[in-house]
Amino acid sequence: MRDLVDAPEPMGAGHKKVIIVAGGAGFLGSALCARLLNAGHSIVCVDNLLTGDFANVAHLATNPQFRFIRHDIIAPLRLAGPVDEIYNMACPASPPRYQTDPIHTFRTCVEGSLNLLNLAEEKQARILQSSTSEVYGDPEISLQVESYRGNVNTVGPRACYDEGKRASETLFWEYGAHRGLETRIARIFNTYGPRMHPEDGRVVSNFIVQALRGEALTVYGDGSQTRSFCFVDDLVEGLVRLMASDEKMPVNLGNPGEFTMLELADKVLAKIGSDLPVCFRPLPKDDPRQRCPDISRAKRILGWEPRVSLDRGLDLTIPWFAERLSAERRKGALVS
Amino acid sequence: MRDLVDAPEPMGAGHKKVIIVAGGAGFLGSALCARLLNAGHSIVCVDNLLTGDFANVAHLATNPQFRFIRHDIIAPLRLAGPVDEIYNMACPASPPRYQTDPIHTFRTCVEGSLNLLNLAEEKQARILQSSTSEVYGDPEISLQVESYRGNVNTVGPRACYDEGKRASETLFWEYGAHRGLETRIARIFNTYGPRMHPEDGRVVSNFIVQALRGEALTVYGDGSQTRSFCFVDDLVEGLVRLMASDEKMPVNLGNPGEFTMLELADKVLAKIGSDLPVCFRPLPKDDPRQRCPDISRAKRILGWEPRVSLDRGLDLTIPWFAERLSAERRKGALVS
Repeated sequence: MRDLVDAPEPMGAGHKKVIIVAGGAGFLGSALCARLLNAGHSIVCVDNLLTGDFANVAHLATNPQFRFIRHDIIAPLRLAGPVDEIYNMACPASPPRYQTDPIHTFRTCVEGSLNLLNLAEEKQARILQSSTSEVYGDPEISLQVESYRGNVNTVGPRACYDEGKRASETLFWEYGAHRGLETRIARIFNTYGPRMHPEDGRVVSNFIVQALRGEALTVYGDGSQTRSFCFVDDLVEGLVRLMASDEKMPVNLGNPGEFTMLELADKVLAKIGSDLPVCFRPLPKDDPRQRCPDISRAKRILGWEPRVSLDRGLDLTIPWFAERLSAERRKGALVS
Repeated sequence: MRDLVDAPEPMGAGHKKVIIVAGGAGFLGSALCARLLNAGHSIVCVDNLLTGDFANVAHLATNPQFRFIRHDIIAPLRLAGPVDEIYNMACPASPPRYQTDPIHTFRTCVEGSLNLLNLAEEKQARILQSSTSEVYGDPEISLQVESYRGNVNTVGPRACYDEGKRASETLFWEYGAHRGLETRIARIFNTYGPRMHPEDGRVVSNFIVQALRGEALTVYGDGSQTRSFCFVDDLVEGLVRLMASDEKMPVNLGNPGEFTMLELADKVLAKIGSDLPVCFRPLPKDDPRQRCPDISRAKRILGWEPRVSLDRGLDLTIPWFAERLSAERRKGALVS
């Protein structure tokens, strides 16, 4: 995998670790596996392949330091030998996907976290939870700082994910505060890049896929709601730095550059097909109006901030989707 | 048990049910067991006796319609025969008690709910969750309405309970919305009355016990924070009506009469020992400033509102504590 962000490698060549990446065949998980493998560590990639895809890590599987285990973390994971670090990246993350089986989504967040925390305790490993900006729900403040307690509906279509992730933070905090475990909590904001699933359902992949297919771009609501978009390599760098830090309290990781849905649509159209129309559809229930991370803590504690602009990130992402869609077309042509 | 609130009995004499009360040996659970047993139903009282006390239901145990099972709902509960209704009242509810083993508290809320929901699904039973005003955290609005999304810290000493209960609401909502189960969610505000544990740690029992022992009354902070206090029989009536209703969304149950801690202290002192001092101690972390239910929904949907004033409720509660403490003294005298 390309290493777009030439950040300093926090781990010395002499200290190679055994690292579990749960959800390692997903979009973020697979980028993290590649990054850690590239740094010389041994990776145990655990994924139930519910929304993850083995194709995301197939290029890593020839490396003898990479091991793949198909396993659903809702059940306890038993592993022989030492483990130094566990990254919990497991859980469908886009609304259409996590709403397919909401109780399973919730259980992945909660029981999955419990199982991995117990494993970390057994192995005396560090463990990082991929939490999410969704713990802020539909925020009433324009820049979300970690101390903001959120605006989440406990009884609505997004609750299985939002409350599941909130609950997982509580579990991580408890194991960190009262059981002496080295826990980390990353609140991950919107991230994009190669290996996002084309049908993921989130806006960057939606727009790119629609534009590449020559379809109208679907905008929900009036398109004035904002999101921030972090390129995947920046995000992975933040995760690795957070794991290496001493910080047990939640840390926002994301790109504070804020764009409206219409601005994003314009950028994608400018890069792919400017004559395509935009069609508007009703805003889904509980869709947040805005999302933008305050990353002051990450800057201060981790010395981290995103380096890849949205324009550059899109330029790095669009060719991957183009290749993927054309491979699918070739496959479709062969089949039919 | 006395039936202080002579409300209409919602269930006809011809329709006797089998009802599980999880946490049935606790303060609220035992009052509910008595109420339902009194209405002619068969009760299966399930409790792990962690904070519940068999003494709370000992007077019911001679009734052939009453059955007690010692069981922790963190493990699945298997029962032969039909079940019509399940009330989930299981979970330690006062901060010092739920903070003793915070991970167990959290798991009681979440895994306990999951196990009971699965049992309800198997039995096609109605199921009611005792949620809590704690889902509102430290509220920014003076009167908490059900649509208020709360102000809860996911990573703090109260989170194991607050986030556990929020998560349980999500589970109940999911089973109700997507799996066709008849679910009910009661958000219970501060309740008091006979059979509260003397060492429960909440303010009404604290003040009464301290006053009866001739000790200074402990007030946290400056005593200007407010709570509303609902007498137990009123609350139980609300629970029974909610179960009988068709309402799947959360309903606040509590007494909107609001008192500061100092006002409550004055009332208790006037009734027991007016010459006792009040001593002030620092406010615990994340202690809410105010709590007062908006009960418009309960009034409209259930035709319910509290009938017992704080003065009358204290008059009904203090003698129970006096008897309990004197029984403890007699026992202590016998032992020593």
